[in-house]
Amino acid sequence: MIRNSRDPSATEYAPAYAGIPTFMRLPATHDLADVDVAVAGIPYDGGSSTFRTGSRMGPRAIRENSLLIEGYHPRYRFNPLDLLRVVDYGDLEVKVASIEENIELVAEQVSRIVESGATVISLGGDHSITFPLLKAHADRYGPLAVIHVDAHTDTEEGYYNHGTPFVDAIRAGAVDAEAYVQVGIRGAWDPEDPIAGAESLGAEIMMIDDCFEMGIPMVVRRIRQKVGTKRVYVSLDVDAADPAYAPGVSTPAVGGFTSYEILQMIRGLRGLRIAGYDVVEVNPQYDHGAITSVLGANIAYEFLCLAALSRTET
Amino acid sequence: MIRNSRDPSATEYAPAYAGIPTFMRLPATHDLADVDVAVAGIPYDGGSSTFRTGSRMGPRAIRENSLLIEGYHPRYRFNPLDLLRVVDYGDLEVKVASIEENIELVAEQVSRIVESGATVISLGGDHSITFPLLKAHADRYGPLAVIHVDAHTDTEEGYYNHGTPFVDAIRAGAVDAEAYVQVGIRGAWDPEDPIAGAESLGAEIMMIDDCFEMGIPMVVRRIRQKVGTKRVYVSLDVDAADPAYAPGVSTPAVGGFTSYEILQMIRGLRGLRIAGYDVVEVNPQYDHGAITSVLGANIAYEFLCLAALSRTET
Amino acid sequence: MIRNSRDPSATEYAPAYAGIPTFMRLPATHDLADVDVAVAGIPYDGGSSTFRTGSRMGPRAIRENSLLIEGYHPRYRFNPLDLLRVVDYGDLEVKVASIEENIELVAEQVSRIVESGATVISLGGDHSITFPLLKAHADRYGPLAVIHVDAHTDTEEGYYNHGTPFVDAIRAGAVDAEAYVQVGIRGAWDPEDPIAGAESLGAEIMMIDDCFEMGIPMVVRRIRQKVGTKRVYVSLDVDAADPAYAPGVSTPAVGGFTSYEILQMIRGLRGLRIAGYDVVEVNPQYDHGAITSVLGANIAYEFLCLAALSRTET
Amino acid sequence: MIRNSRDPSATEYAPAYAGIPTFMRLPATHDLADVDVAVAGIPYDGGSSTFRTGSRMGPRAIRENSLLIEGYHPRYRFNPLDLLRVVDYGDLEVKVASIEENIELVAEQVSRIVESGATVISLGGDHSITFPLLKAHADRYGPLAVIHVDAHTDTEEGYYNHGTPFVDAIRAGAVDAEAYVQVGIRGAWDPEDPIAGAESLGAEIMMIDDCFEMGIPMVVRRIRQKVGTKRVYVSLDVDAADPAYAPGVSTPAVGGFTSYEILQMIRGLRGLRIAGYDVVEVNPQYDHGAITSVLGANIAYEFLCLAALSRTET
Amino acid sequence: MIRNSRDPSATEYAPAYAGIPTFMRLPATHDLADVDVAVAGIPYDGGSSTFRTGSRMGPRAIRENSLLIEGYHPRYRFNPLDLLRVVDYGDLEVKVASIEENIELVAEQVSRIVESGATVISLGGDHSITFPLLKAHADRYGPLAVIHVDAHTDTEEGYYNHGTPFVDAIRAGAVDAEAYVQVGIRGAWDPEDPIAGAESLGAEIMMIDDCFEMGIPMVVRRIRQKVGTKRVYVSLDVDAADPAYAPGVSTPAVGGFTSYEILQMIRGLRGLRIAGYDVVEVNPQYDHGAITSVLGANIAYEFLCLAALSRTET
Amino acid sequence: MIRNSRDPSATEYAPAYAGIPTFMRLPATHDLADVDVAVAGIPYDGGSSTFRTGSRMGPRAIRENSLLIEGYHPRYRFNPLDLLRVVDYGDLEVKVASIEENIELVAEQVSRIVESGATVISLGGDHSITFPLLKAHADRYGPLAVIHVDAHTDTEEGYYNHGTPFVDAIRAGAVDAEAYVQVGIRGAWDPEDPIAGAESLGAEIMMIDDCFEMGIPMVVRRIRQKVGTKRVYVSLDVDAADPAYAPGVSTPAVGGFTSYEILQMIRGLRGLRIAGYDVVEVNPQYDHGAITSVLGANIAYEFLCLAALSRTET
Repeated sequence: MIRNSRDPSATEYAPAYAGIPTFMRLPATHDLADVDVAVAGIPYDGGSSTFRTGSRMGPRAIRENSLLIEGYHPRYRFNPLDLLRVVDYGDLEVKVASIEENIELVAEQVSRIVESGATVISLGGDHSITFPLLKAHADRYGPLAVIHVDAHTDTEEGYYNHGTPFVDAIRAGAVDAEAYVQVGIRGAWDPEDPIAGAESLGAEIMMIDDCFEMGIPMVVRRIRQKVGTKRVYVSLDVDAADPAYAPGVSTPAVGGFTSYEILQMIRGLRGLRIAGYDVVEVNPQYDHGAITSVLGANIAYEFLCLAALSRTET
Repeated sequence: MIRNSRDPSATEYAPAYAGIPTFMRLPATHDLADVDVAVAGIPYDGGSSTFRTGSRMGPRAIRENSLLIEGYHPRYRFNPLDLLRVVDYGDLEVKVASIEENIELVAEQVSRIVESGATVISLGGDHSITFPLLKAHADRYGPLAVIHVDAHTDTEEGYYNHGTPFVDAIRAGAVDAEAYVQVGIRGAWDPEDPIAGAESLGAEIMMIDDCFEMGIPMVVRRIRQKVGTKRVYVSLDVDAADPAYAPGVSTPAVGGFTSYEILQMIRGLRGLRIAGYDVVEVNPQYDHGAITSVLGANIAYEFLCLAALSRTET
Repeated sequence: MIRNSRDPSATEYAPAYAGIPTFMRLPATHDLADVDVAVAGIPYDGGSSTFRTGSRMGPRAIRENSLLIEGYHPRYRFNPLDLLRVVDYGDLEVKVASIEENIELVAEQVSRIVESGATVISLGGDHSITFPLLKAHADRYGPLAVIHVDAHTDTEEGYYNHGTPFVDAIRAGAVDAEAYVQVGIRGAWDPEDPIAGAESLGAEIMMIDDCFEMGIPMVVRRIRQKVGTKRVYVSLDVDAADPAYAPGVSTPAVGGFTSYEILQMIRGLRGLRIAGYDVVEVNPQYDHGAITSVLGANIAYEFLCLAALSRTET
Repeated sequence: MIRNSRDPSATEYAPAYAGIPTFMRLPATHDLADVDVAVAGIPYDGGSSTFRTGSRMGPRAIRENSLLIEGYHPRYRFNPLDLLRVVDYGDLEVKVASIEENIELVAEQVSRIVESGATVISLGGDHSITFPLLKAHADRYGPLAVIHVDAHTDTEEGYYNHGTPFVDAIRAGAVDAEAYVQVGIRGAWDPEDPIAGAESLGAEIMMIDDCFEMGIPMVVRRIRQKVGTKRVYVSLDVDAADPAYAPGVSTPAVGGFTSYEILQMIRGLRGLRIAGYDVVEVNPQYDHGAITSVLGANIAYEFLCLAALSRTET
Repeated sequence: MIRNSRDPSATEYAPAYAGIPTFMRLPATHDLADVDVAVAGIPYDGGSSTFRTGSRMGPRAIRENSLLIEGYHPRYRFNPLDLLRVVDYGDLEVKVASIEENIELVAEQVSRIVESGATVISLGGDHSITFPLLKAHADRYGPLAVIHVDAHTDTEEGYYNHGTPFVDAIRAGAVDAEAYVQVGIRGAWDPEDPIAGAESLGAEIMMIDDCFEMGIPMVVRRIRQKVGTKRVYVSLDVDAADPAYAPGVSTPAVGGFTSYEILQMIRGLRGLRIAGYDVVEVNPQYDHGAITSVLGANIAYEFLCLAALSRTET
Repeated sequence: MIRNSRDPSATEYAPAYAGIPTFMRLPATHDLADVDVAVAGIPYDGGSSTFRTGSRMGPRAIRENSLLIEGYHPRYRFNPLDLLRVVDYGDLEVKVASIEENIELVAEQVSRIVESGATVISLGGDHSITFPLLKAHADRYGPLAVIHVDAHTDTEEGYYNHGTPFVDAIRAGAVDAEAYVQVGIRGAWDPEDPIAGAESLGAEIMMIDDCFEMGIPMVVRRIRQKVGTKRVYVSLDVDAADPAYAPGVSTPAVGGFTSYEILQMIRGLRGLRIAGYDVVEVNPQYDHGAITSVLGANIAYEFLCLAALSRTET
């Protein structure tokens, strides 16, 4: 792969609009020897059966806009790329025409990365990919605590789609339901009570109203109490942000987080034992000015910083 | 009319992107027998003489995006469609080429609904439709208290347009000027003082600065003090929201409310004696990603919940 | 259903931007008694596994833009709505999460219409819906001649998707392969020869180069020779038009027809024994200015005129 | 007014994206002394009662994109600005809230220019402005031959709107109906025969099919035969072009002219005794990539060349 | 120049969408006699070498959207146009092909305005224009305190571009580095620590986190402490706002200010001795709904009010 | 580099929207051993000083849309990737801030490829890159015949920009002016005669009018006569196509070629001794629906076929 060096003088001649776009200009490879973190796209939106479609274009758009980020974090005062060996694993194979086959196909490929010891940061794709992601992680680590930031509970019963992954994940034993927290839930999407459904599966729900009332620092505290020292998986649906901040999603949900609140929340997870991460539902077909993709890229980058912190702080 | 059942299993086969779009898949009918609430579009933008035009497409866009909402309110813990009989009354007839004729035409049609005993939730169209709306309501109920959420005072003198409806409504005796409150006012649209003008008509003005300083709960308290137990009409211009949250408007006004603050404010009106509602100025021609239409649909839905609450709580 | 009258004075008060959008303001109903033509949407894009997605929004967009058409054909000198009883059958049920189930589901619903004696004009949706459409028609009429206007052969081997429907239709015996003609084929989409594949299935292929060289009147003559007096099905993929004329498609193909050439070709089918029609692949997510939807609506309208002609001329 | 010099070195320092945009950087003034041609915007879309609205933004967009044109015509081999004294008269006053008042207001202002001896090139605005334009010209010149290029006949009966101006103009005696020709007519917009209506008013109609069949040179010959040496007014609705070439219009009409055919037709009018010109219905709200505005600017420029030719050739 | 009167009745006939767009309909002139404030566009984006380009269209878009503002400030309770003589100086000459020549060219033209005694409010263009702006102001006033609101430090070392102007300005002695404050800094744009770099040049940095934690009133207090009674230059990069509020920028930076916070901050500068102002990086090519341009226009207007206040309060 | 195999079964699992986008999924490498053709992006738009900017994003957009093309040419009946060894050389280094340095930088890198014996197909970027491209080719092959397809002559005198490259190339001795032909020229961009200028440099000009009158087959014959058996360079500015077919350009020119005519012309060059190719001025910032990028990708692919033909036919 060419022009992915991190030569600091490179951007004068190869600016963010130049070159073949890998995530943050990282080398694109399937070679996982000594790799700490693998960023992998999952360009699948076959689960978006409810309203809009198009998050299949998400990984590509996130990569392009990740090129704005050269990586020095002005608050952590490090560049995670100096601390970790990170690769762009490219996009996983997907099977748009069959969601069941896709679950298997994704799970299998993720398992291969997880088994190598690398931490996975996945770029969606719609939320249906989180079930195979959780499955692959649980196969290695056992049932996982889950921090699930979203406007929707995604614990509906019924046929498998992007509104149901956590039901299947819990039933498959991939989730430690004692330590499953949903943050940012809101809206009137369902004809009947989705909260009761989610709670009956064990999830603790932090409605958006509660989040706004208590403020993000307290939200973070509640998340940390719930998760404790358990190994945890982080799944972030960008529609947790308000459509003003993330118009490019498949099921926009008014009354959501600002982009800063999202970043603040992620930074609050510092020190947790995080097994894996995903950022899902970036839909470039509705993302004028690419602001959702830019947000998605920054979320993935913040995940990378958490991974770097966990190496340096333990 | 087909495919408007509320069969809970329906969305698997008839998702939000399918079917002929009525508001929340409600039956489209002019039959008002036993109807509690009629949702009516008023696709008129002949009053948008100041800058952009296009809110004629508002009702259609709000309906389409209302299909994301199946109705269970996770905070109120009910589905208003279980408590009320609601219909989509379709779009009223309009007369774009003559604003005077349009005022008559709209007022007359609204009167017919109001006389049936149904509560009207109107989907604009530009703000010029609020004068006939107020007139029709006052014809039945007498002068009404008014809660008017907007970036603009809409009490300019001069020829009739979407910046003047409240002047005519007050002069026509449709408004109880002792109980008229404007919320969210800001900006430098006028060459001379619009506040003095509005105040001289009796309006109490809560500038956006004041709203931000005191916070929405206090704003709500002030509104409730002003309105008390009087019968009140609620008129919400989506440009009260910041252009970040509502880009699809005809006269965008920076420095406005978030979508959450709008929802919070509406929820604060619980228990008031509300005679009618409108949400106006959704302009899909400038609404990339449809976020303003989504907001408009949610506002209309929150109005529906207020109507449900008023039935159940009295 | 309201405001769907064809009262000629209606448009002054209910212009094309007003009202709940049914196709050409036709009544929306499942009642097929005495119906000549049923226009039915099939909002399915689960077969769009190759590039872009979004034709699920096609039926809605076509309906909206059909409101520009009140129906008098200035060349035929009639209004087909005066000659036929036409209804908008709404959208068929679809199953986005399983293409196999969707094939069954669509075929079954189409059969119900076909059995009633009504002619179906389908609004796609992606091209994968044409297999169930052909199946349902062949169930009643036996194997059908097919006029297939498209940039792509759609006769690829492999898993079922929007590039394969005619393979399955031929193998299922729904197509009279002696009378199957493809018009407008071009491009370098495949790694290997798609023409040979299509021809081995029996299709006669009129490449776009040939079409441009001979001109549309001769193209029409060739189509008519092939089809003769056999009962024929017409399937029109809007990507047959150049992306300049139809940007809103899932797999844009440069070097295509103008919109006028498309209309000219349809008009050339006058007098053929046409059993059914579809217009597919209108993808509003990429259709700025809605020009593809407008084209799609006009194509469906021209189909309606063919149906009217076949009544009056036989 | 600043930076409107025609200094040939100017564009290095004041490129097409710089400066306050007057038409072709002409001086903006109401001083008509010794002026040959006045370019005037008419930012009115109150007559767009049928579908989309937004041509009020047309004059502004045409001016901006006119800056691409510095003026040397490579075929005529002159720069019309070297042969004529041309000014940008700015935008006329308009009255969006009353179409009747607007007709008076526009007619009166146009008369003032016409009386000065300057030729008017008007930039619309919707087609309803052509009645006052014709009236003002006929007031000076008597009834005028009319060359009307359009997809629509615009001779509907009923309330005044952008689909009716020629009825009123004919009835007001502003048109010499013996020499009124419509070019490019097509589509199924009306419920009943619009051709008969137009013809009964005296118009000769060249349907788009006829135009395509005979080719533009023959179309031009027919126009010239009809008009002869009479004084003629040219009204060009950009929706005569296909939506591929002119997506930014209020009522898009598939199956239309290419941009080249439009230019070819205008060039064919060389030597006619043209009294005035308008280009209408450019609607920037639907004009992605501004291609319709660019076309509108070029049309106005070609009009300017005709005016220059008529000075030099007589 | 025509139709720029401030006749209060004008907007009925010349609304915000009409007329040739000068800033707030001010007269466009280079005559600076007795002028208090000159608003000048600098349509240059040759320094945007890092990601997107297009802010060359910024001045034009800001002017167009400034027409929404007729000027009465509902909080200050005055119209600055009643207190100051303001002109639109048009766009400065630029030299896109050579950034060095452009620096000279801009500096020279700004100096001419500054020497006249008029205060300059510049509309960018990319941030590279701030070096010549500072230079021209320092030539008259000596080294200036600087209030620099931005997401980026813009104090990178290396070749001159829109990320470096303050380095050159400091080195050229145009900045009083003791009184240089950066507000809103965030993000991971650089491979190495940009904060240290900025601080080593003397800048005091208020990171966005700090701003959000302390709140805007305290941010304002800190700015005022730093600047004191020194003569100060204000440079505001609109990407300081979150992309939700300002999508139309060249390097979008998530986690930023709301539009209200920007206005609040500017209003907090009341009474400071401000020598000049710029608002930069409005990029209309990515500004759907024009919300960034509307924000830019309001920022320039708020600057105008500060200028008015400084006249009236001293 | 991963997932760039040409395994024919690949697209089921790695469709056109998946994977890191190299041109036609070719391997991305700088290793030119045994390479027949190198496709290289030149993401430079610093020469776009005349109107819009943004073609820096061109190579990226062309690559993404090239993924629609798997390569079998249905007319030539081969897949060029079966006949040639082709690589994606990535993007060349560019220097946006200095056009002179960029000329050197580009020329030097192109020379390196040319010296390796590989044929270069360049993806622009603006037309200013053609001077270094011609220079690098002439350094190896001597002065070259040039086929230049464009709306503009690009032979203006003055400072170097995207409207001047051929002047410099001719003066640098890189062009055999006896065999330089311009095709598609039109428009009124210049204040004075650009044709005379171009002709005085030796170019033969085929105006668009002439092209349309004689038809593409004759245009091709004239080109071939001019070029004969000389070694020739092909430079294709996509604005040669009409804005309907190529809206995404920096200086749109109405009245141009269709996409089919462009393809037809390229195919007509079969058998010429072509030394190198470029396709320039694709500007994705104005390219709604990406139709210009799709056209650009197909043009590059047709170039590839010409290269394959020249191998197999000689």
